[in-house]
Amino acid sequence: MAKTFDVLVIGAGPGGYVAAIRCGQLGLATACVEEWKTPQGSGALGGTCLNVGCIPSKALLESSENYERVMHKLAAHGIKVNGASVDLAAMLARKDAIVAKMTKGIEYLFRKNKVTWLKGHGRLAAGGDAWQIEVSGGEDNGKVSARHVIIATGSKARHLPGVPVDNQIVADNVGALAFSQVPKRLGVIGAGVIGLELGSVWRRLGAQVTILEVLDEFLPAADEAVAKEAWKMFTREQGLAITLGAKIGKVAANKKGVAVDYVTKDGEARLECDRLVVSVGRVPNIDGLGAGAVGLKVDSRGFIEVDAHCRTSLQNVYAIGDVVRGPMLAHKASEEGVMVAEIIAGQAGHVNLDTIPWVIYTAPEIAWVGKTEQELRAQGAQYRAGQFPFSANGRALGQGEPAGFVKMLADARTDRILGVHVIASHASELIAEAVVAMEFAASSEDIARIVHAHPSLAEVVHEAALAVDKRALHI
Amino acid sequence: MAKTFDVLVIGAGPGGYVAAIRCGQLGLATACVEEWKTPQGSGALGGTCLNVGCIPSKALLESSENYERVMHKLAAHGIKVNGASVDLAAMLARKDAIVAKMTKGIEYLFRKNKVTWLKGHGRLAAGGDAWQIEVSGGEDNGKVSARHVIIATGSKARHLPGVPVDNQIVADNVGALAFSQVPKRLGVIGAGVIGLELGSVWRRLGAQVTILEVLDEFLPAADEAVAKEAWKMFTREQGLAITLGAKIGKVAANKKGVAVDYVTKDGEARLECDRLVVSVGRVPNIDGLGAGAVGLKVDSRGFIEVDAHCRTSLQNVYAIGDVVRGPMLAHKASEEGVMVAEIIAGQAGHVNLDTIPWVIYTAPEIAWVGKTEQELRAQGAQYRAGQFPFSANGRALGQGEPAGFVKMLADARTDRILGVHVIASHASELIAEAVVAMEFAASSEDIARIVHAHPSLAEVVHEAALAVDKRALHI
Repeated sequence: MAKTFDVLVIGAGPGGYVAAIRCGQLGLATACVEEWKTPQGSGALGGTCLNVGCIPSKALLESSENYERVMHKLAAHGIKVNGASVDLAAMLARKDAIVAKMTKGIEYLFRKNKVTWLKGHGRLAAGGDAWQIEVSGGEDNGKVSARHVIIATGSKARHLPGVPVDNQIVADNVGALAFSQVPKRLGVIGAGVIGLELGSVWRRLGAQVTILEVLDEFLPAADEAVAKEAWKMFTREQGLAITLGAKIGKVAANKKGVAVDYVTKDGEARLECDRLVVSVGRVPNIDGLGAGAVGLKVDSRGFIEVDAHCRTSLQNVYAIGDVVRGPMLAHKASEEGVMVAEIIAGQAGHVNLDTIPWVIYTAPEIAWVGKTEQELRAQGAQYRAGQFPFSANGRALGQGEPAGFVKMLADARTDRILGVHVIASHASELIAEAVVAMEFAASSEDIARIVHAHPSLAEVVHEAALAVDKRALHI
Repeated sequence: MAKTFDVLVIGAGPGGYVAAIRCGQLGLATACVEEWKTPQGSGALGGTCLNVGCIPSKALLESSENYERVMHKLAAHGIKVNGASVDLAAMLARKDAIVAKMTKGIEYLFRKNKVTWLKGHGRLAAGGDAWQIEVSGGEDNGKVSARHVIIATGSKARHLPGVPVDNQIVADNVGALAFSQVPKRLGVIGAGVIGLELGSVWRRLGAQVTILEVLDEFLPAADEAVAKEAWKMFTREQGLAITLGAKIGKVAANKKGVAVDYVTKDGEARLECDRLVVSVGRVPNIDGLGAGAVGLKVDSRGFIEVDAHCRTSLQNVYAIGDVVRGPMLAHKASEEGVMVAEIIAGQAGHVNLDTIPWVIYTAPEIAWVGKTEQELRAQGAQYRAGQFPFSANGRALGQGEPAGFVKMLADARTDRILGVHVIASHASELIAEAVVAMEFAASSEDIARIVHAHPSLAEVVHEAALAVDKRALHI
């Protein structure tokens, strides 16, 4: 007889492993199926985020920013550097060590919270009083049963038809974190978050980077003012060559490089490069999950259908994270994991999808929460906007990072904050205040009346709130 | 007949200049008296904060941190640096340029908001229907009258009896920002905010720094856990030599250096150093204000007595900032300035002294808001504490800054947050979320249920909130 768990989680990314830990904390007998293998062939928890996503990319972004700083930014401080060079293998090894520390940390957390890690691929085999899950292709093959199932199988990189990814010459997010040499000419297809972040890494390390984006608009999900400022910085100041409205044609790769044919409104063109990154979005991953066999409802784009509490069409089966509707963001997945664990344990739980912060880890960083101005305009909403630049902030000047601004949008009648948009160094941290404010339904006047430490970058959030009422102090 | 203003502000530091700008925005005919002169002899707005305080110190902290990074922290990233050196004059010139940009910016803001800058020293000469203020010692000498007066004369460095400060060999905050060479041996009297910040600057640039502190306790205003962690980092890891319980005796200075005799519980000792910084606190500045002549009430420690709305004992005379009760912090002064301006204009205004954030800009930074654990214990309060380390945070690891923690204190019965304490890189920014939360009377569960961006340092605030309920996810 197979072992029966209270909860079985399929997938140990930031949705699944957090759900499993929270289930363990709540006293539920919990297992988590995960098939991920490191390049060295051993199993690893953490999914895309920890192994080939958020964590390694941030390590490389920091390292490459340090190189950019030492090469270009220290003279202004009166620091003379007699040359510097990059040992790429050491830089990548640092990244790998951070990934290993984090993924081993989750193994520890699983043990601490009595979560059983089943190594292998999980497939929904049959329902009934309990669900049967078949584990295969790993060390823990066999059938297990569980009263509740949480599907947290995440997403996978979208590939282009006819463009095979070998993660050597043509890479997705996995290979683009591990090029063994800095490419002289790096091509990137897709000017989204991943393309911009990894394009920035390799540009700072010396690559000549060209990004082809099929859309005519740059960063359409971001506020239009932020996107415009980002475009100016990335293309004019940093030298990323970005072509919008580029429809990709034939991609011919060999051992030496890649030729990408594309068409813009100006006609046909070809990009020759040494390495190519394909970052054209991510798609929900339900490969081999057995959804069809058990009748799990999946929408036309491949997302598992869920309600506000992440319940699927099947009794006692939940799905969370990138494999369901909503932003494909690690922290959204984690919070859904906590919510579902608490619901299974008989507690209350909810996730407010309207206050999920978005972050793009370029330099400067971009972060936002709530509505963009173009969304409000499209809705016909009556709103007021306040904007304030970091160039008038003493802390930003001290740090030598005067670029960017904060923009706050508030309801014209009630003054309730509808959106906050930041493009700046440390935007990823500054957005936290805005999320808390929006969760408390704060008005822009609330933020305007709250004391902000001087000198700090957060003063710019304060000034943007004052600017909503046209009474910023320092501009 | 002297010109009559609606409002006359005495002092153009962060309290006074902000008050003046806000008065101007509200349509009040406003003047601001300021006598500050740059080393080159021209007048300057901004007071201590902009000229010789917050702003220049942060510029030097950043520059010196960059030097520390290039010398010691880049190898871990796989970046080889072939030596680096400091051009101190260039580093100081960068600082001076930032100060000039900021102070000139306030001149612009005064013009924009129609605030008249009266150059000279302001003295309350006589009351009546309007106040008479005598301006002397500057370019705009003479008498002016105003219906309302806002005293924003700030504070000055406390000096030790018998220890003359020449700002060459023996310096207060002014000279310690401008040593023309890195002292080989730097002595610092006082392990408070200024001593620690400026001691850190010169240590990073190569000085051997010894700090003598009269108190037996280190950073008694900070939470005890933060103070303990800071002590460990500053003394063991960074090599600041700090002696507590050191009663200063004779200080003998000549052109070559300084000998400081002091006594500890271990007996008499002498510190020989090349330069000495005296940073033993600040005292309210009412020099030449004419307080006695007009009957302005001043307490035994020299602070002007005010009520919660910064009203003094005299009709239509307000006092704000360091010259009144409450924390000597620039942002507290600014908010009091806004409040008083709005009250004079017939609006409402208040400042919540319980939610003023404190920041110490060491590395790592220290920031807090609300009560410390030792304060709660002394009050007999029933509370719960949650603490989470940055060493378990992916963003901190990526940035190579895993030191420190967030500690949250909440009421045991209501769960309302009573204090948040951060010691970490970027603590100055992380505290903003905590201030907003406390202004909204948030519970620790509120913060625990609010989504925080991944990966970000702010996740540690989230985990500390979870830890209050003993359910942190990642430890």
